[in-house]
Amino acid sequence: MDFFKNKQQAEQELGFGSKNYKNSVRFIKNGAINVTRTGLGGLNNLDIYHWLISASKTQLTIAICIWYIAINLLFGAVYYWIGPEYFGGLDADTDSQKFINLFFFSAQTITTLGYGHIYPIGNTASTAASIESLMGLLSFAIATGIIFGRFSRPRADLLYSRNILISPYKDITGLMFRITNKKQYELIESEANVTMTMNNPTTNRREFFNLNLEISRINFLALSWTIVHPIAETSPIYGLSIKELEERDVEIIILIKAINDTFSQTVYSRHSYKIQDFVENVKFKPLNPEAGKNGKLKISVTDIHHFNSVQKS
Amino acid sequence: MDFFKNKQQAEQELGFGSKNYKNSVRFIKNGAINVTRTGLGGLNNLDIYHWLISASKTQLTIAICIWYIAINLLFGAVYYWIGPEYFGGLDADTDSQKFINLFFFSAQTITTLGYGHIYPIGNTASTAASIESLMGLLSFAIATGIIFGRFSRPRADLLYSRNILISPYKDITGLMFRITNKKQYELIESEANVTMTMNNPTTNRREFFNLNLEISRINFLALSWTIVHPIAETSPIYGLSIKELEERDVEIIILIKAINDTFSQTVYSRHSYKIQDFVENVKFKPLNPEAGKNGKLKISVTDIHHFNSVQKS
Amino acid sequence: MDFFKNKQQAEQELGFGSKNYKNSVRFIKNGAINVTRTGLGGLNNLDIYHWLISASKTQLTIAICIWYIAINLLFGAVYYWIGPEYFGGLDADTDSQKFINLFFFSAQTITTLGYGHIYPIGNTASTAASIESLMGLLSFAIATGIIFGRFSRPRADLLYSRNILISPYKDITGLMFRITNKKQYELIESEANVTMTMNNPTTNRREFFNLNLEISRINFLALSWTIVHPIAETSPIYGLSIKELEERDVEIIILIKAINDTFSQTVYSRHSYKIQDFVENVKFKPLNPEAGKNGKLKISVTDIHHFNSVQKS
Amino acid sequence: MDFFKNKQQAEQELGFGSKNYKNSVRFIKNGAINVTRTGLGGLNNLDIYHWLISASKTQLTIAICIWYIAINLLFGAVYYWIGPEYFGGLDADTDSQKFINLFFFSAQTITTLGYGHIYPIGNTASTAASIESLMGLLSFAIATGIIFGRFSRPRADLLYSRNILISPYKDITGLMFRITNKKQYELIESEANVTMTMNNPTTNRREFFNLNLEISRINFLALSWTIVHPIAETSPIYGLSIKELEERDVEIIILIKAINDTFSQTVYSRHSYKIQDFVENVKFKPLNPEAGKNGKLKISVTDIHHFNSVQKS
Repeated sequence: MDFFKNKQQAEQELGFGSKNYKNSVRFIKNGAINVTRTGLGGLNNLDIYHWLISASKTQLTIAICIWYIAINLLFGAVYYWIGPEYFGGLDADTDSQKFINLFFFSAQTITTLGYGHIYPIGNTASTAASIESLMGLLSFAIATGIIFGRFSRPRADLLYSRNILISPYKDITGLMFRITNKKQYELIESEANVTMTMNNPTTNRREFFNLNLEISRINFLALSWTIVHPIAETSPIYGLSIKELEERDVEIIILIKAINDTFSQTVYSRHSYKIQDFVENVKFKPLNPEAGKNGKLKISVTDIHHFNSVQKS
Repeated sequence: MDFFKNKQQAEQELGFGSKNYKNSVRFIKNGAINVTRTGLGGLNNLDIYHWLISASKTQLTIAICIWYIAINLLFGAVYYWIGPEYFGGLDADTDSQKFINLFFFSAQTITTLGYGHIYPIGNTASTAASIESLMGLLSFAIATGIIFGRFSRPRADLLYSRNILISPYKDITGLMFRITNKKQYELIESEANVTMTMNNPTTNRREFFNLNLEISRINFLALSWTIVHPIAETSPIYGLSIKELEERDVEIIILIKAINDTFSQTVYSRHSYKIQDFVENVKFKPLNPEAGKNGKLKISVTDIHHFNSVQKS
Repeated sequence: MDFFKNKQQAEQELGFGSKNYKNSVRFIKNGAINVTRTGLGGLNNLDIYHWLISASKTQLTIAICIWYIAINLLFGAVYYWIGPEYFGGLDADTDSQKFINLFFFSAQTITTLGYGHIYPIGNTASTAASIESLMGLLSFAIATGIIFGRFSRPRADLLYSRNILISPYKDITGLMFRITNKKQYELIESEANVTMTMNNPTTNRREFFNLNLEISRINFLALSWTIVHPIAETSPIYGLSIKELEERDVEIIILIKAINDTFSQTVYSRHSYKIQDFVENVKFKPLNPEAGKNGKLKISVTDIHHFNSVQKS
Repeated sequence: MDFFKNKQQAEQELGFGSKNYKNSVRFIKNGAINVTRTGLGGLNNLDIYHWLISASKTQLTIAICIWYIAINLLFGAVYYWIGPEYFGGLDADTDSQKFINLFFFSAQTITTLGYGHIYPIGNTASTAASIESLMGLLSFAIATGIIFGRFSRPRADLLYSRNILISPYKDITGLMFRITNKKQYELIESEANVTMTMNNPTTNRREFFNLNLEISRINFLALSWTIVHPIAETSPIYGLSIKELEERDVEIIILIKAINDTFSQTVYSRHSYKIQDFVENVKFKPLNPEAGKNGKLKISVTDIHHFNSVQKS
C-alpha cells in the first residue's frame, strides 16, 4: 500500500497555502488541524452529531441530564396546561405539587416506565402522553446510535516522545522521535509521514518540505518505533541552527497511519513539534523490555521520553 | 495510494456509454449520477432502507408519525373488533370513545409504556396485545438501526467554487476550480479525478477525456485546494472556444476522494460543471487566513467563490 | 488501486487446488463459493449470528415468533411452577387458564410492557420476573444489533447478462458479458477479475487461467459495462471449440469489486458461467438510454441480456 | 494491492527492537502480540469497552448479572434510606422484607417494566425513580452498543496446520504450512507475510528476516492454501539444522490478511511457530475434496494437519 508517496520535491502541497503569517502559527495542535472555518452561518457550521460523538463523558452526561429535565419540564407544563383534573391518581393538594407530580408523570412516560398510578384521562391528555412516549423511544434510539458511534470511533492511542532530538545517526546527525502504542489494542502496518514547514526569509513565503525517513513503515507496532530523518545534505534543515529554525517558525508535522486490527479500522494520528520541543546533542535511551515467563515481553511505555546527553564530536 | 490512474488516453471508460444524445445531457447532478434505472418491476427497484437513510429529517419525521398513527389505528380497530368489553378500565360511554380509548391503549402497548389503567381481559385480547408489544420492540429496534445508519453515513461536506475558471497558469492557461471543507471534520489524503465529456462532431459520438492535473493529491484539506488542469497542447480542450465547448455540450465531471479521519471513513464527493459555470479571463482571489492567538488559523469558507478579472495578454 | 494484478502466467492459484474431479464441478454458485466445510464438529461450524444476518425476512420473522412463544412458554411454566397464588390479579378459575394468564404475564414482562393488572407477589415470583425483564432487554439489544447488521451489510446488486458471448471483437473474437447496477445505489471504481478453469486432458489436472481484459476498471458504473476478454493467440481458450470447452468442464469465474459510495463500502460480487451459458456468433444489442428533461438518462436494466446474431465471416 | 512489500533485505523492522533476550521469547501467542504495556497508571491502561468487546460470553453474562444485582442493591438501599413509607403498595411486615420489595421495585424501574403495584409517593422517591429509569435506558443503550460491537467485530477464523514442515520442494526443500477457513464466511484476496526471527550468535542481537514466498496472494481461500518458503541459498535458514535453529530461539511469525466479503471487512490473523512445531522429512497429504451433487465440493478442514514421511534423498 503506497499510502504516502515520499516525494522528493522541495515544496509539497499540504492544503495549508503558502502565506507567510506575521505571528507564529501552529498548524497541528492537540492532534487536530488548528483551523477555524466560518462563513456559512452558525447553523451550517454546527454539527450536533459530531459534538455528541466528540464530547467528553462529563459533557455528554450533563447534556443528557439537561435534556431530561427540559423535556420533562416541557411535557409537565403541557400536562398542567391541559389540566391536572385530566390525570387520574394525581393526588396533590397545591398547584405547585400538581405540576411536580405531572413532571414525574412525564418522566414515567418518556422512559416508557408507565407505573400507572398516575394515568391520563380523556383524549387530549392521552394524545399528549402518546406523543411523549413516541418521542421517548426515538430519543433513546438516538442515544443508542450516539453511544455506539462513540464506541466504534477509531482509536489510535499513540504516545509521542515529549521531545524531538537531533542525535548522532551513522556518520551524520538525524532528527528523531519515538512513538509507542498506549493501549492493549494492536496496531499493525504502521506508516509515518513527516512534513516540515518554515518561512523562507528570501521569498517571504511559507514552505513545506516532506522529510525523507530511514524507514517509513513497519509491520507491527509492538514495542516502540523510532522515526528517523537523516539530516543529509539533501535535507531542508541541513546546516540550519536551532536559532535559525526558531526564527523561521519551524513546525514538524507528523501523520501516522496504522491499522487497529481489533476493529479492523485504519486509524490516523497527528502530532507536531515546535522549536521548544527540539533537543540537541542527546540520544534516546534504549527501551529495556524484559522477557517474563512464557516468553512474554513487558515494557513501560513512558520510557520513550528518556534520553541521554552525548559527547559532541 | 494510486486511487486514480490519470490515464493519458484520449477516451476513457466511465460506464456512461458513448451514445451521442440529441438533447443536452447532464451526467452528474446534485452530486449524484443522473440516471434512472427501470426494467425490474417496481418492488425490485424500491429500497426502503435506502430511502429511510437518504430521506430528509422532515420526510423521516412525517414517515414515523404516519406509521405511528396507522399502526395504532390498525390495532385500535383489532381491539374494537375483539370487543371493548374485553378491556378492563376502558371507561367510555359511546362506541366512538371506546374506539378512541382503544387507540390510546394501542399506543401505550406499542411503546411498551403499559400504564395498566386499561388492560386486556381474556385470551384473544391478551394475545393481540402480546403481538403488538413485540411489534413495538422490533419497530424500535429497526428505528435504532435506521438512526445509527443515518449517523454513520460517510460525510464529505465539500464546498465547490461556484464557477470553473479559465485563468492564466504559468505561460499558458489552466482550467481551475477550488474546493474547501465546510465542516469541522478533518479531511486528509484528498485525491481528485477530473473527466471531461463532450460530443465529437466528426464521429457523432460522445467522448470522455481524463484531464491531467497539476497536483492530484494533497495530504490535508486544511484550508482550500485549487485544482488545476493546465490547458497545454495535449489537453482535449486546447484551442476550443467557450462557444465551441457549448456546442459540444461539454461537462466537467469531478470525483473527489478523501478520508474523514474522525470516523476513519473514505468519503466520495461528486460535482459537475456545465458551460454556464465557465468564466474566462479571471483568476481566483487568494484566501486570506488570519493567524489568531495560539497560532490558530481562521478562514471564511465562502471566500473560495471569489475571483478577479485579469488583463488579457 | 491495483486491486487485481492481471497476472499473465498460465496457472493462477485460486485456493481451489488442482484436483481433476470425476464429476462436473461448479466452483461458484448463486454468487457464493460452492464448498461445504466439515471436520470441526457441528457446533464449531454453526454460526448463529451469520445465519441471522443472512436469513431471509420470512425466516427471520419465523425465528423471532418461535423464540417469543418459546420464551413465554418457558417463563409461563416457571411462574406456574412457583405457584399461581403468588401472582396478584390473575383472576382465573381453571388451572389451564391460570397457565395461559401466566403466559401473557410473561409476555408483558419480557417486553417490559408491565401493565400491572397481574403482578408478582413474594420473593420467588419477583425474582423470576426480574430475571425475565433483564432477559427481555438483552434480547432486544441483540435484535437491534442483528437488524442493524442486516441493514449495514454491503450490497452490490449487480445484474449479469444471462449469457456469455463469443462475439466479433476488432479483427478477432472476444469473450463478452455485461453487468449493470440494479439499484439506485451508486457504484464507483468498479474492477473486474475473470478466471477460467478447465481440466487439462494431458496432465489430468484442473488448471486455472487469469483472462486478460480489454478494460479491467471503470470509474463509474452508471449505465452498464461490457467486460471483454480478447481471444488472441495468448488466450487459453484460443482455438478451442464450444464442444472442447464442454468436455473440459470449463467454468468462467468472475469477481467484481466496486465501491458503494452511499455507504462508503467496498462491495464484492461473484458470478460464474458454465458451458450452457455460452453463445457463439452473436453480439450484444447496444443499450439505448434516453435523455429526458434536465438531461437525465433513463435505461432499462434488463436490456443487458439482449443480443443479435451476426453473420459468420 | 501491494499490502505486503516482500522486502529482500536481511533485516526488517517489525517494531520488536533487536535486544537479545536471555530467556527464550515468544513474540506472537494465541494470535496476539505477546507484550504487556505498563507505565501509564492502572486507569489509563484499562479499557472497559475493549474488555467488554473481547470478553467471552460467560464473562460477559457474569458481568451483566453482577451489574444488575449491584445497581438494584444500590437503588434498593437509596429507596430504603428515603423511607419505605414513601412507596405505595409495598405491603411488607418486616424491615428486611421492605428492603427486598424495594430491591424488586428497583428492578422493575431500571428495566422500565413499571408494573405499578409498587409506586413512588412524594418528590424524593419520585426523583430517585426518575433517575433510575433514565439510567436504565442509558445502560441498555450501552448494552446494545456493546452487543453490536461484538457482532460486527471482524472475523478471520483461520485454521493453521499444527506443524510447519521442511519438505521437498522442486530440487531443494521448502518451509511449508497450510491454512484453511474454518467458517462458512468467505475469505477472498488472501495475502500472507512470513517473518523469521532468531538470535545472531555473532552480533548477539536478535535479527528479523522477511521470508520470500512462492505465492504470497491468492484470490479465493476456498479449500486450503499451502504457503511455501523455498529454502534457497538466499534464504536466512539455508544450511541451518533444526538444532541450530533451536539454539537461536527461532520463531516464525505469520500475518495473514484477507477480506471477509460477507461483511466487506479486511481481517487479520496472526500465528507463530516455534521450534517444537518443526517437522523434517515429511510432506503434506493432499486434501481430498469430493465433488457432490450439483458440482458442490466438500472438504474436511482438519485434514490440513496431516502429513506423510518422505524418503530422505
